[in-house]
Amino acid sequence: MLLRQAGLSSARALNRSVARSPFTNPRIPYTSGHYLPIRASFSNGGPSAIRRSTELPSLAPHTRVKRRLQRPFLPRYVSTKPLPATQSRFLRFYYRSLAAFGLFVAISGGLVVAFFIYDASTYKEGPSIEEDIPVSEVALHPRRGGPKNLPIAEHLVDDDDSAAKKSQKHKPKLVILGTGWGSVALLKQLNPDDYHVTVVSPSNHFLFTPMLPSATVGTLELRSLVEPIRRIVAKANGHFLKGMAEDVDFSEKLVEISAAGPTGEKQNFYLPYDKLVIGVGSVTNPHGVKGLENCHFLKDISDARLIRNAVIRNLESACLPTTSDEERRRLLSFVISGGGPTGVEFAAELYDMLNEDLAKYFPKILRCEISVHVIQSRGHILNTYDEALSRYAEQRFAHDQVEVLTNSRVKEVQPDKILFSQKDENGKIVTKELPMGFCLWSTGVSQTDFCRRLAAKLEGQNNKHALETDTHLRLIGAPLGDVYAVGDCSTVQNNVSDHIVTFLRTLAWEKGKNPEEMQISFADWRGVAKRVKTRFPQAADHLRRLDKLFEQYDKDKSGTLDFGELRELLLQIDSKLTSLPATAQRAHQQGQYLGRKFNKMALMAPGMRLNQVDYGDLDDACYKAFEYHHLGSLAYIGNAAVFDINGLNFSGGLLAVYLWRSIYFAQSVSLRTRILLAMDWSKRALFGRDLMNF
Amino acid sequence: MLLRQAGLSSARALNRSVARSPFTNPRIPYTSGHYLPIRASFSNGGPSAIRRSTELPSLAPHTRVKRRLQRPFLPRYVSTKPLPATQSRFLRFYYRSLAAFGLFVAISGGLVVAFFIYDASTYKEGPSIEEDIPVSEVALHPRRGGPKNLPIAEHLVDDDDSAAKKSQKHKPKLVILGTGWGSVALLKQLNPDDYHVTVVSPSNHFLFTPMLPSATVGTLELRSLVEPIRRIVAKANGHFLKGMAEDVDFSEKLVEISAAGPTGEKQNFYLPYDKLVIGVGSVTNPHGVKGLENCHFLKDISDARLIRNAVIRNLESACLPTTSDEERRRLLSFVISGGGPTGVEFAAELYDMLNEDLAKYFPKILRCEISVHVIQSRGHILNTYDEALSRYAEQRFAHDQVEVLTNSRVKEVQPDKILFSQKDENGKIVTKELPMGFCLWSTGVSQTDFCRRLAAKLEGQNNKHALETDTHLRLIGAPLGDVYAVGDCSTVQNNVSDHIVTFLRTLAWEKGKNPEEMQISFADWRGVAKRVKTRFPQAADHLRRLDKLFEQYDKDKSGTLDFGELRELLLQIDSKLTSLPATAQRAHQQGQYLGRKFNKMALMAPGMRLNQVDYGDLDDACYKAFEYHHLGSLAYIGNAAVFDINGLNFSGGLLAVYLWRSIYFAQSVSLRTRILLAMDWSKRALFGRDLMNF
Repeated sequence: MLLRQAGLSSARALNRSVARSPFTNPRIPYTSGHYLPIRASFSNGGPSAIRRSTELPSLAPHTRVKRRLQRPFLPRYVSTKPLPATQSRFLRFYYRSLAAFGLFVAISGGLVVAFFIYDASTYKEGPSIEEDIPVSEVALHPRRGGPKNLPIAEHLVDDDDSAAKKSQKHKPKLVILGTGWGSVALLKQLNPDDYHVTVVSPSNHFLFTPMLPSATVGTLELRSLVEPIRRIVAKANGHFLKGMAEDVDFSEKLVEISAAGPTGEKQNFYLPYDKLVIGVGSVTNPHGVKGLENCHFLKDISDARLIRNAVIRNLESACLPTTSDEERRRLLSFVISGGGPTGVEFAAELYDMLNEDLAKYFPKILRCEISVHVIQSRGHILNTYDEALSRYAEQRFAHDQVEVLTNSRVKEVQPDKILFSQKDENGKIVTKELPMGFCLWSTGVSQTDFCRRLAAKLEGQNNKHALETDTHLRLIGAPLGDVYAVGDCSTVQNNVSDHIVTFLRTLAWEKGKNPEEMQISFADWRGVAKRVKTRFPQAADHLRRLDKLFEQYDKDKSGTLDFGELRELLLQIDSKLTSLPATAQRAHQQGQYLGRKFNKMALMAPGMRLNQVDYGDLDDACYKAFEYHHLGSLAYIGNAAVFDINGLNFSGGLLAVYLWRSIYFAQSVSLRTRILLAMDWSKRALFGRDLMNF
Repeated sequence: MLLRQAGLSSARALNRSVARSPFTNPRIPYTSGHYLPIRASFSNGGPSAIRRSTELPSLAPHTRVKRRLQRPFLPRYVSTKPLPATQSRFLRFYYRSLAAFGLFVAISGGLVVAFFIYDASTYKEGPSIEEDIPVSEVALHPRRGGPKNLPIAEHLVDDDDSAAKKSQKHKPKLVILGTGWGSVALLKQLNPDDYHVTVVSPSNHFLFTPMLPSATVGTLELRSLVEPIRRIVAKANGHFLKGMAEDVDFSEKLVEISAAGPTGEKQNFYLPYDKLVIGVGSVTNPHGVKGLENCHFLKDISDARLIRNAVIRNLESACLPTTSDEERRRLLSFVISGGGPTGVEFAAELYDMLNEDLAKYFPKILRCEISVHVIQSRGHILNTYDEALSRYAEQRFAHDQVEVLTNSRVKEVQPDKILFSQKDENGKIVTKELPMGFCLWSTGVSQTDFCRRLAAKLEGQNNKHALETDTHLRLIGAPLGDVYAVGDCSTVQNNVSDHIVTFLRTLAWEKGKNPEEMQISFADWRGVAKRVKTRFPQAADHLRRLDKLFEQYDKDKSGTLDFGELRELLLQIDSKLTSLPATAQRAHQQGQYLGRKFNKMALMAPGMRLNQVDYGDLDDACYKAFEYHHLGSLAYIGNAAVFDINGLNFSGGLLAVYLWRSIYFAQSVSLRTRILLAMDWSKRALFGRDLMNF
């Protein structure tokens, strides 16, 4: 049993082995007729001995022994008979189990009592704040100004709330727009003392997006996936304002923010910044399809609630006696437009719910008439994953009777059906229609209006889908060191060739030549390549064999590269660089990167001020460029999961699901969400999913 | 330590006491010079003995002893010296704690592993239903009929889903309208084999109403208070249709139901019944006040979500730099109209949240400017409770800075303020106004349209606020034994005097006289009183001293009561009977009562059919009349609670709160909700309330 293994002293273990010795066990009577030979030999020589020892009365031998036993430490006489076992093995096992169980119950009970005591300590008696709260006048009545003459929030009402906040009051103002992966990673990384941090977002929670599909059918609860942003902001001693960024005035360093005023109407004001981080995310891409008002989306937590209600509403409608067969089939036809991870995971979760929970409580006819369809424009679902994985997912779906319609494009969504064109095997495009009762639109992301507005203002912003940044994550076109962008709303420029002159400038200075007329030797090329790698860490993979590249592009075999040849070389590298994926992973890494950089900059600021360095490429001087490390992709596909981690593919059933869960469990934002996740998973196992809508 | 207490055998405990004996402990060496006197006396008589025993070699005594010890069961010599302790007390305690902790961890780990194994078994592979589901043609295509020529749902699509359901297909149809306390208590009490049960309600969950105020601020989660109704219905092998009762045709025994059809429009159909139970509840009473669209209500679980979002929206707005001081104070002025249990508990929960969680994450200025006001039309809050309790609650609120405005009536609710009239100490009525950012309207209940429609149709329905039933809970005016009403939508008639002729009928038959001309002796009066008690169990309390009553109302001292005197007696009893409170408790007892009665009726039905009894007062023949037992009232008032149980009053702080919780924990509807409640309470202790809105 465990008692012994867990560190009992050996003395105790030995005691147990002695337990059955008659010397020590008072239960075994010293009955006559069972004495050892030694006693016989003793009594052989006994008569004279007894005669001589005057203290011993003349009693029958066993009676004498009995008397002796009452006095401790006398020599004792023992039986030779095999000793009876004191307890049966079974009884002993039973007693010990009982003891172990008792101990377990007692410790558990103790913990519960301790928890109750802790709980009792968390209730506050009476109003907690009695003293006057210092609030600066300028926070209560902000002055107006800026291009639109709006109130400027130079100070906030909680600037003097605590000593920590007071000390930050005059630190550089760091304004963070958005509360997604990038912003939260930045907040978690940031030293709380270096900046006056203000976070602005229309939603006051951080959403753990990768598990959002699980919340749509009740596998997880909505609250388990979100963390109050104020809790995260508080750790950085920051401030939070619930509002939406409308515009940025780069010259006066003001963000225009609109917020719902006291009576619900929009009120705009300016928030001044020294550093601005844009992490406002993206919106659903409509791809110009008509009738998207008949679709559901899956971007925020409230979408998950709407989907859950819609699915259950359809199930309830399907039970009504007034619903015809045809209508029932339509109501139970669930269409997912988009075969990316979100679409696939939603299809999987929906299928799980319909398969595991529906049949228990709803009429069986529903289960027979349900159909789930995934419409994918590419040839395979999960097309950003390894082919083996997307094939595994397709097989899994085929087995689960989830229909996958590949090479299909949605043309229009009507309230009761979806029209799509499908390329058949001969490449001919046919238009089909699918009756449906529910449609999820998850076909990728697009730019928000705010980003579009900024891009239009700035020079050098040519990407239609996202704000372009350099490799230091600085917004292209904005003053250096002022504005950064992270996450889905941004993309890192990979235009190595555009910077050819920059790379050659130092070389040209050294040699006193016009960069465009220079001949670059292999040694020079090595220097250039090093500079390229520093500036574009993502290009490092393609700059491994410098000699080969040099040889390949030295077309005239002159032993040197001229400007044109170098440009061609760099252009070829550009073409190999893909833009970074719009994932939580990338945003998280970018946020962490900015956090570390800002900490470093704050550390170096006093020295720089001393040297009166307040211009030039401070970012570059302080910190390396951003480099993305792809850690892998994973997806849940209905009691199975696929992994694509560092090029290693792995897919499987339940064990993979547990692994998938543990990865997200570990990545979850707080202890609170972790405990809630564990509770939710247990709840599903014990009680199934709740099929209610409200 | 616990090990011993928890059932270890006494043998083992004794072993431990022997542990330090040198006989058994091999660690203690038998060093020379410490022998017992007996050894010396032995050696006194020894020489001869040793000489005679030839087996023993001539060794020094202690050496010999050593040799002997190697052979078991020889007499041994022991030291008299105090034995050294093998381990220090501390070390032993440490080892044992470690062992106990190890055991605890091991058992916990084992339980976790067991849970994972169980969890793994709950995932279903592949589609669960492959075979054909039998569905009757008439369920898929119901015939039309009834006064409005609507489809009649004689059979449902899940009538043939299981053997149990099949066997009920032709049982009497019991239709239950509503999924509140009454309906659920009835469902839980009902034998699953006796009726074809169909439950109809617009909401597919049962709501644990007494704790609803806790869900408004996040002390409890919404889902912890609701149970899917299909789970409860399934236990009675019943059917559920999500729809709303519109009307009842009593002659054709059809309920008209409207439901949201496949495309969202209303579709009406008839549901035939043999027995109908109406438990549709009530709606909020507007008391004719203007501007209630500016108020929140607290009837259903979705209301709790709306309130939570509204409260947090106000808090967020109050942080904005554009919000003026005055506006901030208005936004943070929370008004509760109605000082009953719901209003008081909401005020308490709101105050808790503002006090415990707000200050941690929101600017401190908010906490200073928050105000909570309770407007009560009567002289005290909780006026249905004992006076001591309502005074305690008022003191508590005064201490917590929750303003209680008594003798006040709301006149109008405007978007940003509330107008009310207050009676001052001199009885003069003054009109006041209170700026507010949030208003909860919880001033009592009123009849639903459906009930109003039924009451208008039926004879004998004179109550404006609820459907009247007799003491068998049968709807007055509807055919006997067909229609019952329970819960808030109903009230039990206490018109004893109206039934005077009924009570005298048997007596009159026996005596062959006109009841109105009879003289009633004391013996007759005893018989009448017995009949009154059977029919009106609630009147029993007022019929204790029959002789006194007789004496009192025998005004002419004739020794008999005439018809007029008896009527006066009964009228006086009527005046003492109050209508039953509109509480969960009453609805629950009524539901249970009906469940038991229906079970009994099903049991007696074969015998009755045999005797061709199919008319007359079957309910009366089968089962006693409904009697309400008031178990007490309780209310949570902000880290304190008040109880009014069987006339015993009790109020107090945290311990009372734990008691309050345990009572509701025990009354909760299912294991699922109990576990969720416990989780929620722990969550609040660990992480506080989530201040997010979505």
